[in-house]
Amino acid sequence: MNLLSWFDLVGTFVFAISGTLAAAEKRFDFFGAVFAGFLTAVGGGTIRDVLLGAYPLAWVQNLNYLYIIITGVLTTFLLKKYIAPLRKTMFLFDTIGIGVFTIIGLQKALTFGVHPIIAIMMGTISAVFGGVLRDTFSNEVPLIFRKEIYATACILGGFLFLILDNYLNSINLKVIITILFVISIRIIAIRFKLSLPRIENLN
Amino acid sequence: MNLLSWFDLVGTFVFAISGTLAAAEKRFDFFGAVFAGFLTAVGGGTIRDVLLGAYPLAWVQNLNYLYIIITGVLTTFLLKKYIAPLRKTMFLFDTIGIGVFTIIGLQKALTFGVHPIIAIMMGTISAVFGGVLRDTFSNEVPLIFRKEIYATACILGGFLFLILDNYLNSINLKVIITILFVISIRIIAIRFKLSLPRIENLN
Amino acid sequence: MNLLSWFDLVGTFVFAISGTLAAAEKRFDFFGAVFAGFLTAVGGGTIRDVLLGAYPLAWVQNLNYLYIIITGVLTTFLLKKYIAPLRKTMFLFDTIGIGVFTIIGLQKALTFGVHPIIAIMMGTISAVFGGVLRDTFSNEVPLIFRKEIYATACILGGFLFLILDNYLNSINLKVIITILFVISIRIIAIRFKLSLPRIENLN
Repeated sequence: MNLLSWFDLVGTFVFAISGTLAAAEKRFDFFGAVFAGFLTAVGGGTIRDVLLGAYPLAWVQNLNYLYIIITGVLTTFLLKKYIAPLRKTMFLFDTIGIGVFTIIGLQKALTFGVHPIIAIMMGTISAVFGGVLRDTFSNEVPLIFRKEIYATACILGGFLFLILDNYLNSINLKVIITILFVISIRIIAIRFKLSLPRIENLN
Repeated sequence: MNLLSWFDLVGTFVFAISGTLAAAEKRFDFFGAVFAGFLTAVGGGTIRDVLLGAYPLAWVQNLNYLYIIITGVLTTFLLKKYIAPLRKTMFLFDTIGIGVFTIIGLQKALTFGVHPIIAIMMGTISAVFGGVLRDTFSNEVPLIFRKEIYATACILGGFLFLILDNYLNSINLKVIITILFVISIRIIAIRFKLSLPRIENLN
Repeated sequence: MNLLSWFDLVGTFVFAISGTLAAAEKRFDFFGAVFAGFLTAVGGGTIRDVLLGAYPLAWVQNLNYLYIIITGVLTTFLLKKYIAPLRKTMFLFDTIGIGVFTIIGLQKALTFGVHPIIAIMMGTISAVFGGVLRDTFSNEVPLIFRKEIYATACILGGFLFLILDNYLNSINLKVIITILFVISIRIIAIRFKLSLPRIENLN
């Protein structure tokens, strides 16, 4: 099992926790929390695979995703008061998650023979759509549309990964460099309060 | 035509009525009502089939679903004042509906060679996702995430059906026992005000 | 390239603008605007293709859609003050868009051997679901469910196109007649304040 597969598990686990925390705020019950955790963790990859027609879906074929997600939800239920304050740790793991999901989605799309730009889109969809679905089903405007450099970090990370692909052989090295890059973009964006322009600023 | 097929029609009809009643509350017009009825009635099965890659979809291939749904919507438009008070009858038919949709979805998923746990998930998705989509498109937080034992009744019904599958041959008998079980769970849950724990109760 | 293909580009461009304007009202950032433009422009066709199992999706295979959408979003960002007042022009292009998308969706569905009624449904889904998704992700009740004769114009246009198919050979002529018909329905509906009945009016 390579580094990417390990990070995939970490990302799935962290996204399940983030979905459960969102469900807790909305006063969902345990089933609602599992649903929110599941949607956040595998929703992005599911949308990507449905758009590609890539059957069977990963979580349909491999029960480990379900087990990891339920573990994530139970962990959050039992240890909420310890998890909630870990904002910085969660931020780090979440960013590792979107970086990894971008790379996995991008690679999978390329195996379907799509243009690299579409592959980067599919990677970004893998990374961010779980959160978009979670927010939509919770009746919230998805945060991603107005907050910080989030999807942009995935898109830029996707470009970097494709460039590195021409020069490096080690998948582990490419993954580490890309994820460090995505983390740096998010930290820099937060530190300097960078954000994308809104349409009303331009008129 | 076996009992399951008959119940499938009943479930589709009742779900179309429930979608139309939700549309009426939101002041949708006739097209909106047909859309809400359609989404509620076939939305869950559609999501299941898209997740499995099970083409062609049942309602694309078989126009009877569309006819039943339009009949359900028209019935609700014409007889609303008689239908609205029939809460107990609607509850009964709705529970038959989710029981049947769970069994149909579970069986279909098994024909795709998935693990029984995934099959139970697919059955539950068939049963509850129509309502989730109806609520999401109506800009409501789906009720299922915070109210009563609803999805849980499907999950438990799914387990029972798989267990019965080892001991009984008659599909009709298995269907009746499973549906009576699902109805009992919902009645007991309502009578004793059972609900799943929420995350804030645990901390 | 026939008239239908040209109109397809016009429809995609106009729908991208309409999505961007909706995003601006919600104060989405640039990425959110591209997402909203994209969803509005290709969301309906994507839902249609996923329901039909028609892979690969048009925009996955053909990058021109992406380029047209990004051009539409940038145009809106740069020229918002000139575009916003062009309500009548936008209405005209939007109606050409739904007419064209109905015809394209209907034709594509027929190549999958579905019943003509399902083909008209698929055409209507192509035309209106982009806007439905845009509204749902923006946390709005989709306007289409309660405003004017919008989906109805697509459904009637679809019927007319299928009837014309028996009598005319020229695709351009059929497209022009159908689109003029759809435009007429919408103008008549607005002029005479026609709308579909709501359920509460009937009781």
